[in-house]
Amino acid sequence: MARIVMKFGGTSVADIDKIRNVALHVKREVEAGHQVAVVVSAMAGKTSELVGWAREASSMHDAREYDSIVSSGEQVTAGLLAIILQSLGVDARSWLGWQIQIKTDNAHGAARITEIDGEQLIERFNIGQVAVIAGFQGVGPDNRIATLGRGGSDTSAVAVAAAINADRCDIYTDVDGVYTTDPRIEPKATLLSQVSFEEMLEMASLGAKVLQVRSVEMAMVNNVRLFVRSSFEEPGAVDQNNFNGTLICSEDEILEKQVVTGIAYTRDEAQISLRRVSDKPGVAAAVFGPLAEANVNVDMIVQNVSEDGSVTDMTFTVPDGDLEKALAVLEQAKREIGFEVLQSDPGMVKVSVIGVGMGSHAGVAATAFKSLSEHGVNIRAITTSEIKISILIDAAYAELAVRALHSVYGLDKE
Amino acid sequence: MARIVMKFGGTSVADIDKIRNVALHVKREVEAGHQVAVVVSAMAGKTSELVGWAREASSMHDAREYDSIVSSGEQVTAGLLAIILQSLGVDARSWLGWQIQIKTDNAHGAARITEIDGEQLIERFNIGQVAVIAGFQGVGPDNRIATLGRGGSDTSAVAVAAAINADRCDIYTDVDGVYTTDPRIEPKATLLSQVSFEEMLEMASLGAKVLQVRSVEMAMVNNVRLFVRSSFEEPGAVDQNNFNGTLICSEDEILEKQVVTGIAYTRDEAQISLRRVSDKPGVAAAVFGPLAEANVNVDMIVQNVSEDGSVTDMTFTVPDGDLEKALAVLEQAKREIGFEVLQSDPGMVKVSVIGVGMGSHAGVAATAFKSLSEHGVNIRAITTSEIKISILIDAAYAELAVRALHSVYGLDKE
Repeated sequence: MARIVMKFGGTSVADIDKIRNVALHVKREVEAGHQVAVVVSAMAGKTSELVGWAREASSMHDAREYDSIVSSGEQVTAGLLAIILQSLGVDARSWLGWQIQIKTDNAHGAARITEIDGEQLIERFNIGQVAVIAGFQGVGPDNRIATLGRGGSDTSAVAVAAAINADRCDIYTDVDGVYTTDPRIEPKATLLSQVSFEEMLEMASLGAKVLQVRSVEMAMVNNVRLFVRSSFEEPGAVDQNNFNGTLICSEDEILEKQVVTGIAYTRDEAQISLRRVSDKPGVAAAVFGPLAEANVNVDMIVQNVSEDGSVTDMTFTVPDGDLEKALAVLEQAKREIGFEVLQSDPGMVKVSVIGVGMGSHAGVAATAFKSLSEHGVNIRAITTSEIKISILIDAAYAELAVRALHSVYGLDKE
Repeated sequence: MARIVMKFGGTSVADIDKIRNVALHVKREVEAGHQVAVVVSAMAGKTSELVGWAREASSMHDAREYDSIVSSGEQVTAGLLAIILQSLGVDARSWLGWQIQIKTDNAHGAARITEIDGEQLIERFNIGQVAVIAGFQGVGPDNRIATLGRGGSDTSAVAVAAAINADRCDIYTDVDGVYTTDPRIEPKATLLSQVSFEEMLEMASLGAKVLQVRSVEMAMVNNVRLFVRSSFEEPGAVDQNNFNGTLICSEDEILEKQVVTGIAYTRDEAQISLRRVSDKPGVAAAVFGPLAEANVNVDMIVQNVSEDGSVTDMTFTVPDGDLEKALAVLEQAKREIGFEVLQSDPGMVKVSVIGVGMGSHAGVAATAFKSLSEHGVNIRAITTSEIKISILIDAAYAELAVRALHSVYGLDKE
């Protein structure tokens, strides 16, 4: 017997037939003897409809009222799934954020979960009842519904899993797991059977949008094992020891650590270079302080050691959409920063090589540079961390670079 | 300054533009210096959509889950109206059943309100805030959402009005008030400016479906003055001393009591007659006990004094849809009841003359019988109460009878 959380997104519960399919997945786990909590999103399209109404009502809408309106979508799905489970002979009960309670802070529209009391759910498990929980919602200190922001149902699922001390949190989605890279670019991409939290965080923020980043962070902190799998597999035909999916877990649990696990990329990066910046203490703060205040999201930052200790060059990237704002901010702070030339280039792509094993293997970075060079890809900037090498290149070379790196690290499907 | 409850039904909040119109009605009352609570239904069609999904999920759905699903419709409207009021500069906050709290019994799907704590709402009134309340819902002793049954928003409005001791409860609807009879049958029907609770109860249950019967009962018990008016009037142009609508209030408040206030009717009644029933104590119980157990709703009951004290005839009506079931029940109980012949006729119509003043005026009934006789309408059965005379006739004569009675009591518009 295990205790598991199963999470289903909007496309998996888009209509009554699809919810029936979800119910069969749940029934399978119950019949295997597990204690089950299910977290559901709103039926696909419903949240957008509700958000559209709130915006039509007023572009400057109150976040508390927005939350009350938008959270109704998950409320409907939870009730429908409970009804269908009951009709299949599975004892089930729906739970809203204020009923459990899933307590949040007061940041309506993008609230964070502060506390979940799992006792009530565990009591119901002990009488054999499945808990069907409306995702994306909690209740704030003001006793009003608070939503967690788009994609928040993943976070709900992980938080519930932590609260009830679940053995596993299964994220059912419309893909069958996490791949070594984007299969739309490289058809030879292979499904990863295991990936560490740290690697997944790098992948999620880099474009492999299987899971909300915040939910992976929360899973890492609480050591909740996540299992990403497809909700469109035949629910009954699943052999629990032999089916597709990716387990996201702590590094310790991964026995055979891959040097390189996957290749990720982010499009629409803009490169900004400050030439001949006076190399004095506090210069980085003078550059990035005003940018942060203007809500510009800075990504890669590269600063070279200056030749003579007086001036240096500084390069960093921002999203294309923030470029104009960033340039204006920098021009305004020019005197304080003290640079001579401000250069920028939009339309860059950041390609990243990710792997928890690379720290202990020499030459991983060199392999990447050599491969890109052989394919004629010009490298604009490089940053590295313990588990990641990121390389900024021209957008035209994106697919070529991803395929070259995927191949050179032996990730191609046979 | 007055404290008022304003209730808007589904057609009045069918889309964002209509909700905006509702907001203007609310704003007018706020600007007149009143303390305002608004009770809203779901957007027209939404409840049916939600009910449809619940049925599709399972025909035997759990009432608790049904309530959680269906109540989401009012939740959305309340949030949208609060947002629009705020955008018009009116301080407003939405309230769900579990937030106020509107406590109900455990009869999910058709719950009754047991208690409302008005303190929180009154506190908000004192800081100038409008309360926008989701109608049709409360919270049961099991801490789950409970709905009041179709049309329950009227009941919500009256219950809130009683809890906050409101001066008036305005029911905005798609008609402009209560008429002397159905204007579709008699175009000369006139709008009543006042009608007593008792008269309204008789009219509501007889077909003039402006208000849910239960809400009128509750208003009568708590002496909440109801004002039925149209939500489609220009919100800004309303002169508060001169506009259409019907006040439903206690008899005491009505200075000029009409002998006859209106003519109501109910279609699809079936007449059942038991011939030569042995006239002994307990025979009525023997007839109506089994019918009640079978959930057959018996309406008119007529029993004559028997000629020689040994046998009598007994006539009563049931809805056409219950006729077959009723006949089966009676045949089964034939020996115990002891009747000789069982006769029945479907497709009857009950026409009723209603007026609180008729008790003190002789000849009101005679006038009705004479008028029907002159128009060649055959009377099958008659029952009377303090404020009502009901006459059972063939369906073919329904319109003729309604018009004849409307005219003979001087109710026709000039």
